[in-house]
Amino acid sequence: MHYLGIDIGGTSIKAGLVDESGAVSELHQAPTVVGDLNGLTATLTDLFGKFQAKAAIRAVGIGVPGLRSYSTSVIQTSPNIPCIHGVNLEALLATKLGMPVITENDAKAGAYGEWVCGAGRHLQHLAYITIGTGLGCGIILHGKLFRGASGYAGELGHTTVEPDGRPCACGSHGCLETRVSATAMVRTARELMQANPDSLLHAVRDTLTAQLVHDAALRGDVTAQAVFEETGRFLGMACANLINLLNLEMIIIGGGVIASGDLLLRTAAGEARRRAFAPAALACPIVQSQLSPNSGLIGAAMLARDGA
Amino acid sequence: MHYLGIDIGGTSIKAGLVDESGAVSELHQAPTVVGDLNGLTATLTDLFGKFQAKAAIRAVGIGVPGLRSYSTSVIQTSPNIPCIHGVNLEALLATKLGMPVITENDAKAGAYGEWVCGAGRHLQHLAYITIGTGLGCGIILHGKLFRGASGYAGELGHTTVEPDGRPCACGSHGCLETRVSATAMVRTARELMQANPDSLLHAVRDTLTAQLVHDAALRGDVTAQAVFEETGRFLGMACANLINLLNLEMIIIGGGVIASGDLLLRTAAGEARRRAFAPAALACPIVQSQLSPNSGLIGAAMLARDGA
Repeated sequence: MHYLGIDIGGTSIKAGLVDESGAVSELHQAPTVVGDLNGLTATLTDLFGKFQAKAAIRAVGIGVPGLRSYSTSVIQTSPNIPCIHGVNLEALLATKLGMPVITENDAKAGAYGEWVCGAGRHLQHLAYITIGTGLGCGIILHGKLFRGASGYAGELGHTTVEPDGRPCACGSHGCLETRVSATAMVRTARELMQANPDSLLHAVRDTLTAQLVHDAALRGDVTAQAVFEETGRFLGMACANLINLLNLEMIIIGGGVIASGDLLLRTAAGEARRRAFAPAALACPIVQSQLSPNSGLIGAAMLARDGA
Repeated sequence: MHYLGIDIGGTSIKAGLVDESGAVSELHQAPTVVGDLNGLTATLTDLFGKFQAKAAIRAVGIGVPGLRSYSTSVIQTSPNIPCIHGVNLEALLATKLGMPVITENDAKAGAYGEWVCGAGRHLQHLAYITIGTGLGCGIILHGKLFRGASGYAGELGHTTVEPDGRPCACGSHGCLETRVSATAMVRTARELMQANPDSLLHAVRDTLTAQLVHDAALRGDVTAQAVFEETGRFLGMACANLINLLNLEMIIIGGGVIASGDLLLRTAAGEARRRAFAPAALACPIVQSQLSPNSGLIGAAMLARDGA
């Protein structure tokens, strides 16, 4: 028996056929229609059709960016995909597809995936941090996905790390996401470049991405390396906060930015060790995702499997 | 049937006779012997004797400042009471007193007390923050005291709120406790006084305490009021972080500093509302402790009652 796992991102939708054990046998991708709900559901229905011909699908799990109400299943807010704002996407799709559909915040789905069949198998307490355009987080406590009172828990990206820091899309300022995300890294690079006219980054300044910063860092560009150090320092601070607050057994880092290697992870782990209580820090390795880049869709499929 | 609740602080030990419902009928206090374990246990045994003559005591619960290992019951570290460092205080006292003794971190005990019979009765998810010489925190999740992997969870006071902030006794810097505690407020007052030669605080500069800052604020001293605003701003930031990360139903503030009124609470609540996601912030009132100043000892007694 199979499950369809779907990860809706700000620019593309990834879907995969996932078996009972969490293994992915086939993947398809489609661009995300962000402004038109009919267009979005049509894309999802088309993707479903591609898989339905190949295997018996028991249920569909969908990871979505944004806050999902646990009591009503409605997506309360989704800054990058406005058309699903206020929508009960799982009820809508269950009707269209004629089968059980479950939605969950994408980072929570990723955390669940890493816990079921990734880096955090068999653990009781872990956090999964996914660093892409923004920063998402899902938390497993006592071997269960922790959702909090209404389903909104895990918004580590919108915890303050600098009292008077950069303005954030959420309306606050100094949020972790303004320091640790692809978007944040480009901004940090632009700031640091100004004092370093020799940086390789000047050659690509008009099309700068986190990937280009990473490439330059690997080629020895001091400015690009400083961007990773600064970003890793803030990521380590956030990890130390999680460790001191929740006394976790593992922090798993995934997402597009981390996929490029352990440049961030090393700095982050060092900073976390310096800041957290030693007995708590020792108990909590900071590791790379094992399911990346498919944590979200695998986790969504496993949530559909478990009705969790 | 009664329980003895004890709260060991850095300067004094408070003990109270607590009934099944959490009501306190009698209180005694004694100075804390911080450097000599025999002296400390003698004080505790004496206190126990005073109550034993009055009522049948079924078990003793003790709140201690510091990290307590959940698996071994040993106090791993206690900066203010070095003589209990590495000690299994509950086993030691159980032998001496001939009855069940349970120890727990003092702020966790306070959280449990507020949850059982204080401001947070019947809730599933809450945090209790106690502001005294330092800043402690206990978290209730899914209607249970959350301890994390080893019993060290809840160290909100040692989460970073300023990347390059004040040095902290824990070895890190920029910890919440360096901004929100009686000690921190005195430091903030000393900093702000320098630019305000007219402040009333100059008259008491050599014996400055958080209480004196509070008194001056109530008398209209602008510098003292600014200390409360600055402290409340950091407290609000920490509350917003808890709200966004854990989607709690309530944050309860207690401890000596907050007992003086709602000067901090108002600023903190406003700052938290500005920073946290609206649906999560709306679900989480920030309120004053109902059991203060006895939250810790009542909670410790209730932990002894419940064997929790």
